[in-house]
Amino acid sequence: MTATQDLTALYAEIQHFYARQMQLMDGRDFEGFAATFTEDGEFSHTPGQLARTRAGIVAELREFHRRFAQAPVVRRHWFNMIVAEPQPDGSVRTTYYAQVINTRPGADAQVGPSCVVTDVLVRADGALLNKSRQVRQDRLLLAH
Amino acid sequence: MTATQDLTALYAEIQHFYARQMQLMDGRDFEGFAATFTEDGEFSHTPGQLARTRAGIVAELREFHRRFAQAPVVRRHWFNMIVAEPQPDGSVRTTYYAQVINTRPGADAQVGPSCVVTDVLVRADGALLNKSRQVRQDRLLLAH
Amino acid sequence: MTATQDLTALYAEIQHFYARQMQLMDGRDFEGFAATFTEDGEFSHTPGQLARTRAGIVAELREFHRRFAQAPVVRRHWFNMIVAEPQPDGSVRTTYYAQVINTRPGADAQVGPSCVVTDVLVRADGALLNKSRQVRQDRLLLAH
Repeated sequence: MTATQDLTALYAEIQHFYARQMQLMDGRDFEGFAATFTEDGEFSHTPGQLARTRAGIVAELREFHRRFAQAPVVRRHWFNMIVAEPQPDGSVRTTYYAQVINTRPGADAQVGPSCVVTDVLVRADGALLNKSRQVRQDRLLLAH
Repeated sequence: MTATQDLTALYAEIQHFYARQMQLMDGRDFEGFAATFTEDGEFSHTPGQLARTRAGIVAELREFHRRFAQAPVVRRHWFNMIVAEPQPDGSVRTTYYAQVINTRPGADAQVGPSCVVTDVLVRADGALLNKSRQVRQDRLLLAH
Repeated sequence: MTATQDLTALYAEIQHFYARQMQLMDGRDFEGFAATFTEDGEFSHTPGQLARTRAGIVAELREFHRRFAQAPVVRRHWFNMIVAEPQPDGSVRTTYYAQVINTRPGADAQVGPSCVVTDVLVRADGALLNKSRQVRQDRLLLAH
């Protein structure tokens, strides 16, 4: 198998990994989502915030989703335009676009903030895991 | 070829299958769309509705699209975040997000209902076909 | 490797190519974007407009983006639902959906025009390049 074939197989694997991972998030299975990170994984989805370890990620997501308790919403995370760059240490750095689609009672679906995300993915027991994720909202690029 | 490689090849094949299938739908080639289902295929895209057989699917889509006769719209179906689970019987169960983007005269493009879709795909003469499709709109999750 | 495996590897490669290419565009690296075309590449993104050669593409994009100088916007190009058809001459014809997501100061992200794009891709020194791209906005389909 050539390096190109390796990368194309990896590419589909990453897409599939993200699909499973974000269906867990959108289904509010925060423990399931956190389990797609390494034990010491890092997750930053809002400016100035950084959750560490699986337990820390679960706690952050529970806190974050409290805002939806009184304002019901179905959220769907879409990831696309993924660039995957294998690193010398065996990890893979990905940079991609993320868009949340929100559905609220009695309203049409609406697009949420447009984001660019950077992940470091590693392999453990054959499966991909997030070592880190950093989400950056496009609107913050305009503030400077 | 390992199982992982099989699955990654299958994953791209499913994406490609959906792209062809939904370009047929959006181009209003309902016969072409129905031909991507098995002869006894089942298709449910609105609550309480279930079309059976290719002829039944064509009839349902003709009926459904009548609403657009007096309200012209270009529709584009986007599928993403596909989870594919091969089943013991050789079929593949997929669960994914679907979003329609509507373009109407004199207006900007608008997002339609956000949906989660579950398919059963089977292989016939080497090619994938839908044995069934069930579309669920997110807004109905909020009604309960 | 079978033809099916070839096509699935090609499919992921095309997705990856588009991700890199459009991250260059959205990052306003027009020279980088133009370098993803052949030297004699053709690029048409608005009706009646056709840029030729890499230098011509850079010039067109610089001119086009002038409109954003006084109206800051972060643009994200999403490509999806890609149909890839290898041609007898070794090129690949792709037809896919494209959607721009715009983020402007003080506003939520908004969907831009919905488009269908047709590319001819060729391989040079092992890598994919655009020989041509034609973008068609869905709203123009309604004008007829």
